[in-house]
Amino acid sequence: MAGKSDFKPVDATVTPRFADVATFMRTQRREISAEIDIGLCGVPFDLGVNFRSGPRDAPAAVREASRLIRQVHPVSGTKPYDLCNVADIGDAPVNPLDKDDSISRIETFFGTLKTAGIRPIAVGGDHTVPLPVLRALAKDEPVGILQFDAHADILDELCGTKVNHATIMRRGLEEGLIDPNRVVQLGLRGSRFGDDDIRFGQEAGYRCITIDEYEDLGRASTIEIIDEVLGDGPVYITLDIDGIDPSYAPGTPVPEIGGLIPRDVQVIVRSLAGKNIVGADICEVAPCYDPTGITCVTAANMMFEMLCVMAEAVAAGR
Amino acid sequence: MAGKSDFKPVDATVTPRFADVATFMRTQRREISAEIDIGLCGVPFDLGVNFRSGPRDAPAAVREASRLIRQVHPVSGTKPYDLCNVADIGDAPVNPLDKDDSISRIETFFGTLKTAGIRPIAVGGDHTVPLPVLRALAKDEPVGILQFDAHADILDELCGTKVNHATIMRRGLEEGLIDPNRVVQLGLRGSRFGDDDIRFGQEAGYRCITIDEYEDLGRASTIEIIDEVLGDGPVYITLDIDGIDPSYAPGTPVPEIGGLIPRDVQVIVRSLAGKNIVGADICEVAPCYDPTGITCVTAANMMFEMLCVMAEAVAAGR
Amino acid sequence: MAGKSDFKPVDATVTPRFADVATFMRTQRREISAEIDIGLCGVPFDLGVNFRSGPRDAPAAVREASRLIRQVHPVSGTKPYDLCNVADIGDAPVNPLDKDDSISRIETFFGTLKTAGIRPIAVGGDHTVPLPVLRALAKDEPVGILQFDAHADILDELCGTKVNHATIMRRGLEEGLIDPNRVVQLGLRGSRFGDDDIRFGQEAGYRCITIDEYEDLGRASTIEIIDEVLGDGPVYITLDIDGIDPSYAPGTPVPEIGGLIPRDVQVIVRSLAGKNIVGADICEVAPCYDPTGITCVTAANMMFEMLCVMAEAVAAGR
Amino acid sequence: MAGKSDFKPVDATVTPRFADVATFMRTQRREISAEIDIGLCGVPFDLGVNFRSGPRDAPAAVREASRLIRQVHPVSGTKPYDLCNVADIGDAPVNPLDKDDSISRIETFFGTLKTAGIRPIAVGGDHTVPLPVLRALAKDEPVGILQFDAHADILDELCGTKVNHATIMRRGLEEGLIDPNRVVQLGLRGSRFGDDDIRFGQEAGYRCITIDEYEDLGRASTIEIIDEVLGDGPVYITLDIDGIDPSYAPGTPVPEIGGLIPRDVQVIVRSLAGKNIVGADICEVAPCYDPTGITCVTAANMMFEMLCVMAEAVAAGR
Amino acid sequence: MAGKSDFKPVDATVTPRFADVATFMRTQRREISAEIDIGLCGVPFDLGVNFRSGPRDAPAAVREASRLIRQVHPVSGTKPYDLCNVADIGDAPVNPLDKDDSISRIETFFGTLKTAGIRPIAVGGDHTVPLPVLRALAKDEPVGILQFDAHADILDELCGTKVNHATIMRRGLEEGLIDPNRVVQLGLRGSRFGDDDIRFGQEAGYRCITIDEYEDLGRASTIEIIDEVLGDGPVYITLDIDGIDPSYAPGTPVPEIGGLIPRDVQVIVRSLAGKNIVGADICEVAPCYDPTGITCVTAANMMFEMLCVMAEAVAAGR
Amino acid sequence: MAGKSDFKPVDATVTPRFADVATFMRTQRREISAEIDIGLCGVPFDLGVNFRSGPRDAPAAVREASRLIRQVHPVSGTKPYDLCNVADIGDAPVNPLDKDDSISRIETFFGTLKTAGIRPIAVGGDHTVPLPVLRALAKDEPVGILQFDAHADILDELCGTKVNHATIMRRGLEEGLIDPNRVVQLGLRGSRFGDDDIRFGQEAGYRCITIDEYEDLGRASTIEIIDEVLGDGPVYITLDIDGIDPSYAPGTPVPEIGGLIPRDVQVIVRSLAGKNIVGADICEVAPCYDPTGITCVTAANMMFEMLCVMAEAVAAGR
Repeated sequence: MAGKSDFKPVDATVTPRFADVATFMRTQRREISAEIDIGLCGVPFDLGVNFRSGPRDAPAAVREASRLIRQVHPVSGTKPYDLCNVADIGDAPVNPLDKDDSISRIETFFGTLKTAGIRPIAVGGDHTVPLPVLRALAKDEPVGILQFDAHADILDELCGTKVNHATIMRRGLEEGLIDPNRVVQLGLRGSRFGDDDIRFGQEAGYRCITIDEYEDLGRASTIEIIDEVLGDGPVYITLDIDGIDPSYAPGTPVPEIGGLIPRDVQVIVRSLAGKNIVGADICEVAPCYDPTGITCVTAANMMFEMLCVMAEAVAAGR
Repeated sequence: MAGKSDFKPVDATVTPRFADVATFMRTQRREISAEIDIGLCGVPFDLGVNFRSGPRDAPAAVREASRLIRQVHPVSGTKPYDLCNVADIGDAPVNPLDKDDSISRIETFFGTLKTAGIRPIAVGGDHTVPLPVLRALAKDEPVGILQFDAHADILDELCGTKVNHATIMRRGLEEGLIDPNRVVQLGLRGSRFGDDDIRFGQEAGYRCITIDEYEDLGRASTIEIIDEVLGDGPVYITLDIDGIDPSYAPGTPVPEIGGLIPRDVQVIVRSLAGKNIVGADICEVAPCYDPTGITCVTAANMMFEMLCVMAEAVAAGR
Repeated sequence: MAGKSDFKPVDATVTPRFADVATFMRTQRREISAEIDIGLCGVPFDLGVNFRSGPRDAPAAVREASRLIRQVHPVSGTKPYDLCNVADIGDAPVNPLDKDDSISRIETFFGTLKTAGIRPIAVGGDHTVPLPVLRALAKDEPVGILQFDAHADILDELCGTKVNHATIMRRGLEEGLIDPNRVVQLGLRGSRFGDDDIRFGQEAGYRCITIDEYEDLGRASTIEIIDEVLGDGPVYITLDIDGIDPSYAPGTPVPEIGGLIPRDVQVIVRSLAGKNIVGADICEVAPCYDPTGITCVTAANMMFEMLCVMAEAVAAGR
Repeated sequence: MAGKSDFKPVDATVTPRFADVATFMRTQRREISAEIDIGLCGVPFDLGVNFRSGPRDAPAAVREASRLIRQVHPVSGTKPYDLCNVADIGDAPVNPLDKDDSISRIETFFGTLKTAGIRPIAVGGDHTVPLPVLRALAKDEPVGILQFDAHADILDELCGTKVNHATIMRRGLEEGLIDPNRVVQLGLRGSRFGDDDIRFGQEAGYRCITIDEYEDLGRASTIEIIDEVLGDGPVYITLDIDGIDPSYAPGTPVPEIGGLIPRDVQVIVRSLAGKNIVGADICEVAPCYDPTGITCVTAANMMFEMLCVMAEAVAAGR
Repeated sequence: MAGKSDFKPVDATVTPRFADVATFMRTQRREISAEIDIGLCGVPFDLGVNFRSGPRDAPAAVREASRLIRQVHPVSGTKPYDLCNVADIGDAPVNPLDKDDSISRIETFFGTLKTAGIRPIAVGGDHTVPLPVLRALAKDEPVGILQFDAHADILDELCGTKVNHATIMRRGLEEGLIDPNRVVQLGLRGSRFGDDDIRFGQEAGYRCITIDEYEDLGRASTIEIIDEVLGDGPVYITLDIDGIDPSYAPGTPVPEIGGLIPRDVQVIVRSLAGKNIVGADICEVAPCYDPTGITCVTAANMMFEMLCVMAEAVAAGR
Repeated sequence: MAGKSDFKPVDATVTPRFADVATFMRTQRREISAEIDIGLCGVPFDLGVNFRSGPRDAPAAVREASRLIRQVHPVSGTKPYDLCNVADIGDAPVNPLDKDDSISRIETFFGTLKTAGIRPIAVGGDHTVPLPVLRALAKDEPVGILQFDAHADILDELCGTKVNHATIMRRGLEEGLIDPNRVVQLGLRGSRFGDDDIRFGQEAGYRCITIDEYEDLGRASTIEIIDEVLGDGPVYITLDIDGIDPSYAPGTPVPEIGGLIPRDVQVIVRSLAGKNIVGADICEVAPCYDPTGITCVTAANMMFEMLCVMAEAVAAGR
């Protein structure tokens, strides 16, 4: 399934990277159609947070930051735009004044993508976003999940609500969207509200790797674990940007010091080459707390890493 | 009703203004009680916005900025803390994950204040906040309103919802909380979604003064109009910070250029001496868009202006 | 020449203003065609400056800031999108490594617009930009010019070059693009390199209004002068953002204190209703010096003001 | 006393304004000598503040910002560098760990200038700085003072100390350095600690013009008052940057809203042409609170305004 | 000594973390009393610096940032509020205009704490602060010290003064407050004024671990050394935030690149479980240089780390 | 060749580091002369970039940041100012409106230095700068190069031009300025335009160490490779600041995540002691994207590292 020439991103030698409208990684802004293999999109939703807000502005800001990204992967040599058709398909519809309506609209949007055979890479939005995405993508078959995050997001409820940025890894399991034996949670850390902040996933079978265990294991062993746990089934990647150390990603609602470094996330995502990546997201980027812009630059680069392994999966017919 | 000595704000000659916890204008943090005449409080709610978010952080940030404020008014000579008991009574309870629940809790909080005989000066929060405040304060008698704002906030609905930061001046009227013949809307401007962005209030009897008409009238005539329209009944002041020009108050979700300057707002609020000020708020301050801090400094000063005219009302037994 | 429905900007009730890709004022991103009446575009060129750089990023940043702008003018009631077809036609091509090549490409781009019958509103770019624009638009007939600016831009050369951001009002006259009897320069101020910083225009017949004279005249008289000087011929508006006071527009390479306020610029642009506006630009916006974002917000609003008077001209068949 | 050619500032056509080391307005960095008529200098002292700190960094930051300033005055046409020898003479010595030692060193430094016949324009430092300056300049003859300020600075003591940024206008009078009949305090405003915050100066004969009175008088009448009060004797100008509205000068330790605008300060300083200006300062600039840089740009421009009227005085042999 | 329920921090499920006044880690603001086991406090003093200023604002800013911190330690499982009574006891009194008076007041404040049996965790202030703290805490028995710092702070004098942020580790030894055989200085680096910048401590018996030696040793061996050197006696922890790399803590007066990472500091502090921690501080946080806020977030987290090991010590009756 | 006493930097005990004009590391600003051994200079040129601009302001900003740097190296003990005469010799002349003219002037400037026997350490400017520097320094004998960089800079052309910030490592070889067998490129990474982004250098014999290979090798082995490759001949160091991770150096036009950390660069530069360092530069620092200032602090420290190894070379008569 080779990428069509009329789907290629803007050519920087013709239009400098700072010019014209910003789309994700300078891909074309296309309407949803079956021609598209991978759809880059935004989910400007942040009504699921209980501390600082801001991720509704992430799709716009990451589009801007992603002007930097070029077309060829420096390590794998992957050329995603030669492998398949990639486009910026806009943002999922949301209702900024209604959380539940938004969740519903987001699910519908991703359902449309699934129907059209488009694999999404979404820029949230807060970390509630993966739930409606999975409701669309995984309704027929639960997926394995690689979650980069400081927080396990397995609470039963927060402020009396069941759907928010701290409960998705419990909800998704309860709803049959997640295969508990194919989940890795990486980067967990930070002070806790109580003993239950992490336990549910452990009991459910998730492979929870705190930052302390990660340090002990080292990256190579961790990659082996991830490979083994995720196996051959469909895999969904969710990157809560607060999984990354706040020195590298300060623009996030709930920063936790002592986190993963971008290099580690890059190398781990690269290790997913060969997996059947069915979807991915990057959440909890809050541009209003990112005066240096590096959080958005980091997110843009991670989007490219995800694109490359997903494009390989598309090309391989996985 | 003279202010008690044990209610006095922190003495800056003993504790420098940069020291210790930040309360509104360095008043004491007190629990609600009938001893208190004027209650300074926050309403950290911003689920009623349809563009950028952020005002949930305003109570905290305005408390910090208000360290600057001293105790005596430079023009009127009013000494509010000699006139009555003033305290920081904390923040109204909100549920960051539930808009309707928050609205309900806010109304209850202000109902408690009303019962205790406390007049509130609230720092929002987005401009949905005045509605639950008025539901508590004005449920028995509609109030006159002086609204500083770029936007009339008289839409019937926004994104399918009836209660949000763009509808309160219609909802409040419908609910019998606002006396339509005693309303002045000042500073209206900015591009419009449609012809109806301002009409409802005009038809209802509100005195709408666009920035253009304000320029024509001049401040002195405007003050006369305000005096006449508000009359002798209970008056509520609502300052949407975007009524002020964004050069002076950039930290706001929906800035509109060409606005009021702080000096004008100061002098107009001062002209309310003699009115029966029953409540006041300052809304739409978004600290995350305020890198210079001047928005919060402006808000803190406006809180002091409001306090002085309200304290005069308390002392006069109005 | 009524605006077609399929040319309407994105509907904010369907797609919130913070969502999806940013175009100028949320108009559609269209390729150049004769169907378009008014083309909003960027000119990301800043190789013509001799102090700080940065305006190459203005088209992107003003697109982002212009998410705020709605569809109806609050004073005139003008609905530009009902009057004619308006679109975001992208950015003029530039070569970031070659000043002269860029100037040439920009001229060609605007020549194409002229051929297609599209009136441009351009966001520069530094204040060299109007020269290649005028070379395209005014090659057959010199235009009258309303220039908002701190600097007269009438030097003969700068650093040994003839085409840069300080010479365009001389070059344009020499090249027969400017009708010297129909030029108003408004807002001139700031320390000078020498006595010649302003003289050329005065001798050529330009109506130069320093900030001091503006203060003496008042806005109303100034508007009369502008009306009289510009007359009935084709008019081009150029807004060097440093014409506006740096408190309102700090993000600019060469700020000069004591300038015009945005309100004045708004009202003056509005006074051009009835003129034959053939083109307009906003230059010298440097987002990297605009941490509060108000410079870009100001620019976006000025773009809307220009659009409304230009749309009236289109609709009137001028 | 014409300016020597070897004292001219750096030529921007040879060395661009962004290049090489930053001196005040690109004048030469010279050691103190009798050849110099006007000495631009810094006083990096901020141990006299009781709220936020920061002005110790102002000399460095204003030097940077003053790269913008050119050589000819746009209204008067004054060419200060043709009229006399102007140089950057570095900073007064201070001891960052000893307030009293610093005050003493500053006085000595300005005493050396007086002996050498150099008139200073100093960039503070907090507003304690004028006291040691006046101890040097006015020890033989009290001076008249034009003070732009939000605060009267006439307290008797602050935190148990007599010399700090809130007492200089009392101390200077007590020490015989200030002629009380030749003092204008302009721009006074802001909440007060007590009734005495302004009274001392009024009783001593100072002409105190609050922002309210200034508004009533208008600028023209105020200029007449200033002219009359200052008379023909030696005049010292002290610009506490917080006299200017914080929208235009946010980078200051104690901002007070509703202040003077830079345009007014510019025009008032220009009105001093003909006076015998013996010294001047700009204080309370805190670069660390100035992310847009406009405070420092404002200070740099005000330095040029002061220079022009002072150079006229030098040239006229006053 | 179990923590009392009425001493518990604010419950985030009732009052969201962004709401109400900011205290250290949302503990209660209490007056000093013998009921308190651990007192969190500020020392807003920065008159001991010889370069940039700013730490006087750290107690306020760290209180704000500490809204993020929850109640349970993620690795040790420690629940400090169950172990003992912890409160925010406000700030030590200081005189912003008198360095020596401030030092004296700070010593008195901590003397009162000692008398009341309260162990302090103080947020400075510059790194002069530990000296008056130790004068109170260690007057009867010298303490061991774990110092995280880029600079050894063992100069004899700076700018002619003996007490400032560069001399405390010499003064403390001379005054008998420090047990030289129980001192570890970790993270030393940065260009030096002279050969003596580090020597005194080495000769006195301090275990000085430069960043180079730390890299060679590795964290595990370093922890062994710290354990051995500190032994069983009373231990005081002083964290000069510039010990941490400025990428993670840019908001500090004297940043030095190539430093410790927060993870290392976290793990090392955790290794102190079992020690008799009698006091701790975090100094040299300058919020005005911290636009991303991560310095204050780092400081808040380190405060929690210190609290956990100190609470264990209290609970164990050490 | 011992350093003369009258060449010593400003003494911080006399003039605090925040005081007086900023020169590189507080060395004296001297005119070019044969007395000088090492010349610290700026090259404020950024017309060679094809994305964001800004490095023209780096010499000024790094001078400011370098106020922090002291005189003795903490690891080697090197005292560069005792070893030779070091001065700030100002900035190379540039023409901000003419790229080619600038390149020519820069070459001439460095030619003058070579003639005078001055070894330069230059702060660019964009990464075009090394080419004209090498044209002056290496015209008689090609040099070995240690390049820290995210990008190989070996394209043949960019936007149709041959001399820009992406081609210098090809141009320099073609022009015989670079000895291809004595080149190490370290830190290469980031998405690529095409397969050729790195190949040319590899084929020419450059030792290209991507960040991935660096991780595999480790720092010690890398240092051995560098030592071997550079050998005994003349060595030029070029530090493109984007070689460093953007968390540590966000202020750069083209940041690439996952980079070198400053510690590594420090240790590697230190390992060059004993080499014949004939020149060095630090490029691609863009202060307008550096709100925390750490990029400039990093650059200033790297300048000191370079100075120490270069001063050793001078002293050793290499």
